[in-house]
Amino acid sequence: MPVVKGPQVFPRSEYLRRLAAVKAKMAECDIAAVVITDNAHITYLTGSVAHSYDTRGVVILASREEPVFILRWMDVAAAVQETFMERDSIMGYSEEFMGDPGKNGYDAVIDFLLDQGLGRSGIGFELCNLTVDSAEKFKGRLLQARIQDFSKVVSRIRTLKSDLEIVAMREAAAISDAGVLMAAEVMRPGMREADAIAEIVGTLARGANGKPGTWIATPYLCATSRTGNPHTTWSEDTLREDSQVNLEIAGVRHEYHAPICRTYILGKPTDRLLRIHEAQLAGLEAGLNVIRAGAVSGEVASVIHSTTEKHGFKKRSRAGYSIGIDWMENTTSLKLGDTTVLEPNMTFHLHLGSWVEEDFGYVLSESIRVTESGVEVLTKAPRKLFRLG
Amino acid sequence: MPVVKGPQVFPRSEYLRRLAAVKAKMAECDIAAVVITDNAHITYLTGSVAHSYDTRGVVILASREEPVFILRWMDVAAAVQETFMERDSIMGYSEEFMGDPGKNGYDAVIDFLLDQGLGRSGIGFELCNLTVDSAEKFKGRLLQARIQDFSKVVSRIRTLKSDLEIVAMREAAAISDAGVLMAAEVMRPGMREADAIAEIVGTLARGANGKPGTWIATPYLCATSRTGNPHTTWSEDTLREDSQVNLEIAGVRHEYHAPICRTYILGKPTDRLLRIHEAQLAGLEAGLNVIRAGAVSGEVASVIHSTTEKHGFKKRSRAGYSIGIDWMENTTSLKLGDTTVLEPNMTFHLHLGSWVEEDFGYVLSESIRVTESGVEVLTKAPRKLFRLG
Repeated sequence: MPVVKGPQVFPRSEYLRRLAAVKAKMAECDIAAVVITDNAHITYLTGSVAHSYDTRGVVILASREEPVFILRWMDVAAAVQETFMERDSIMGYSEEFMGDPGKNGYDAVIDFLLDQGLGRSGIGFELCNLTVDSAEKFKGRLLQARIQDFSKVVSRIRTLKSDLEIVAMREAAAISDAGVLMAAEVMRPGMREADAIAEIVGTLARGANGKPGTWIATPYLCATSRTGNPHTTWSEDTLREDSQVNLEIAGVRHEYHAPICRTYILGKPTDRLLRIHEAQLAGLEAGLNVIRAGAVSGEVASVIHSTTEKHGFKKRSRAGYSIGIDWMENTTSLKLGDTTVLEPNMTFHLHLGSWVEEDFGYVLSESIRVTESGVEVLTKAPRKLFRLG
Repeated sequence: MPVVKGPQVFPRSEYLRRLAAVKAKMAECDIAAVVITDNAHITYLTGSVAHSYDTRGVVILASREEPVFILRWMDVAAAVQETFMERDSIMGYSEEFMGDPGKNGYDAVIDFLLDQGLGRSGIGFELCNLTVDSAEKFKGRLLQARIQDFSKVVSRIRTLKSDLEIVAMREAAAISDAGVLMAAEVMRPGMREADAIAEIVGTLARGANGKPGTWIATPYLCATSRTGNPHTTWSEDTLREDSQVNLEIAGVRHEYHAPICRTYILGKPTDRLLRIHEAQLAGLEAGLNVIRAGAVSGEVASVIHSTTEKHGFKKRSRAGYSIGIDWMENTTSLKLGDTTVLEPNMTFHLHLGSWVEEDFGYVLSESIRVTESGVEVLTKAPRKLFRLG
């Protein structure tokens, strides 16, 4: 039997607002169609969250209210259930395209564009996300089209969240907090790191306040002697009497991520550990004090860097980055020299993490929202160095 | 303090064997250096498993035994710990490259190639994985180089596993089996899908036989009314008295994945469910009977398709695909018409899954290894329709 729509996270008007912003840019550039291929952008513009490892595209037509989603036939049912669009906006391509070296789902996208009589029109592509092969396929089969790079268009629109998106991010942040507290509850000397991760990711799935996590983002658990690494997941080791654990996790609601970092010490903290905690805490609070609509990103970073440096720790990495669907947004960084002016409902992972030696680092961070007058800290777990018996 | 090497999963000789295969191809094409950018290929050639969302590359030089790994400075410590290579084979690039629209880690890779005097040499790139921007950066800064596409070279080498890799895959398969059994133990009417996933992914982390999972691969849990979807993760729904659950998970050891699918019914199975189970079971067993070194991939698929069809269900999708690091290998498909001749130690996800209506599908699969005389089924969970109270 045909499937019907599942529960919708956002109303149709939310998607039409997002699409209107893309269409405004299309009108400006005299573009008849934009082909969206970035997975996060597909989620943002349609509501689709089912995974796909196959080539697929969302085509936004200037002449049509809903976009058209072209994907592998077996993924059509999920798209009908999840997206805000009507069934006639979802087109499945045949199994023949799978595992064929010459053909893939992008051929179905091109067939659609040609069927629409757009072979000589302006067409936007997210060239930044397209591989060389894919771009050549599009260009090769759309020789008469005027191809324009729309790589950054949706990313920029995503940067400013609607109030509805903020609700999802608050829910995600509550899950992050639950994960932080679960880690504090279970991590003890003698426990395998894998067993700690099992409890943490279980919490990320179960969620908080009756709202389950809708995805398990990669958890990073860097324990002694790996606290100098930011991006190792977990090891086959067992936690020891004196282990330090740097944890970076993100609760997820409807693909919206709210990352958080906290550090745990299983024995007695060293002086250096206490001092770097104080330095990062001071830097974090100094950052929170200056973040507001109108502040300049690079100046916020400068306050953070100089504060930690006053406390004796030079932070080498940027102080944060824009977050939303799929964790990092790859748009604005809270970075020295960045000239972005902050606006209300921009959201960041304000990240004080510092890897000061190859075998020593410390992490402390919050997910935050910029407001007119200051900042809302979305994550609310105790902002402390967790000392675990 | 500088970090030291962590436990090594594979001996140095294993990596040198893999590299020798790439170097043979380089010699054939008169190529002085190959730049590896695919994450799975980086893992395969170096042992690195830490994640990175930043641009990075492994450069294989014809003139040097070890490859050179160029990555963000903060990820160097993890690379030293994880890879088989000496410290002088790992180079960190500066934080300045982060969040800079014009520059990224690939500039550091290019700087290295130019420093090596290779600006006019033959250089291989994995163009299939490079975005248009990245390819333009490489071509633009290496104008005098002879650029060659090395996209499929490492993928092809990966297809044939060593016995050491098979050991890792057996361990991964045991974790997959544990996940399947945990799902059977916990899934009951009234349980939220998210709570079932929490238990399942916890098991995937804890592992089996004292060997933890080293990664949590995306779990797919498609319950009524989503059994027609292959690729939805889980929903916010609660399992019901008559729910069917299609589960696809993969245990992971050192990035080697061993996927498995099983189907569960919480109430009384319908006749249709019993019949499709019998059809897929017959197809699976027919496939296992004909797989052996020397068999042709498309002919194996043909036997499977005709068997399920005899049992009244036409399978639309391919019957499997090559597996290893990072789940799917994107090389050989067990697909009608495929002319690949199977060789010993090729590994496949033999996948009978069928999505016959938008609201109804069934899944049954095994991870397998091709042997001289037949097949080793790596996953060993009961090959049945699980009936849960």
